[in-house]
Amino acid sequence: MTTLKSEENGEAEIRVLMEERVEAIRDKNVERLMAGYASEVLSFDVVDPLQYIGSNEIRRRMEEWFATFQGPIGIDNRGLTIAASDDVAFCHSLTHVNATTMVGGHLEMWWRETVCYRKIDGKWLITHQHSSVPFNVESGKASLNLQP
Amino acid sequence: MTTLKSEENGEAEIRVLMEERVEAIRDKNVERLMAGYASEVLSFDVVDPLQYIGSNEIRRRMEEWFATFQGPIGIDNRGLTIAASDDVAFCHSLTHVNATTMVGGHLEMWWRETVCYRKIDGKWLITHQHSSVPFNVESGKASLNLQP
Repeated sequence: MTTLKSEENGEAEIRVLMEERVEAIRDKNVERLMAGYASEVLSFDVVDPLQYIGSNEIRRRMEEWFATFQGPIGIDNRGLTIAASDDVAFCHSLTHVNATTMVGGHLEMWWRETVCYRKIDGKWLITHQHSSVPFNVESGKASLNLQP
Repeated sequence: MTTLKSEENGEAEIRVLMEERVEAIRDKNVERLMAGYASEVLSFDVVDPLQYIGSNEIRRRMEEWFATFQGPIGIDNRGLTIAASDDVAFCHSLTHVNATTMVGGHLEMWWRETVCYRKIDGKWLITHQHSSVPFNVESGKASLNLQP
């Protein structure tokens, strides 16, 4: 019973953290967003390069990305699925982004997202995240217009 | 102490499973590969579509993929990092593939890989995997030539 209970708690805790993460991105609040990351995090992002190593690299990337948008970023997760134990958890979802760029363009796309947590000193922190779109084999282009 | 021990065991178990997974891909052994998957697995693959739902879809995809190569598939993981508890685990690495296609072409590339496990009825099974390359924002092309 103890194990079951802690798994249910873990899942509920991760769900709240993922909601807070979406809110932080929506509000372009770098401080709030980065409070959820371990310093040793490794990130595979939607765009180049192959990997971002450490929370400082992710912070710079997010600051740059947030700065390209006017107003809040429209963002939602669909199909969030969570697996959580006492101190290790992962979740995956499809993320929809809908936002207006500083130069008046429009970003509207879906990507895939996997976010992995460890409980470190009693606090859940993201130690790994993986966001991507697939590519089309014929064209070699990233598939930016797929719908779930 | 019990928790620590089980985490160390979990990590060692996942490391073995990931080695077996690489061997199964190298040998294009679909049965051996698919034995590691939960039937309810959700996969985000390097190429379209957005997601593969369930082990049957993944099996078909792997059969098709394996059939495009002559001989074994050269495959290696670099920087495999594992987090494991009693019944939830995740790992990530960079995967290098080097293989000759049936039509005499050559595939040599790196991609990012996240593999997530749950222990179900006492057996570790993959319930989620995410493989991808990033894309180049300028060209819109998938980045197939990146090196770690």
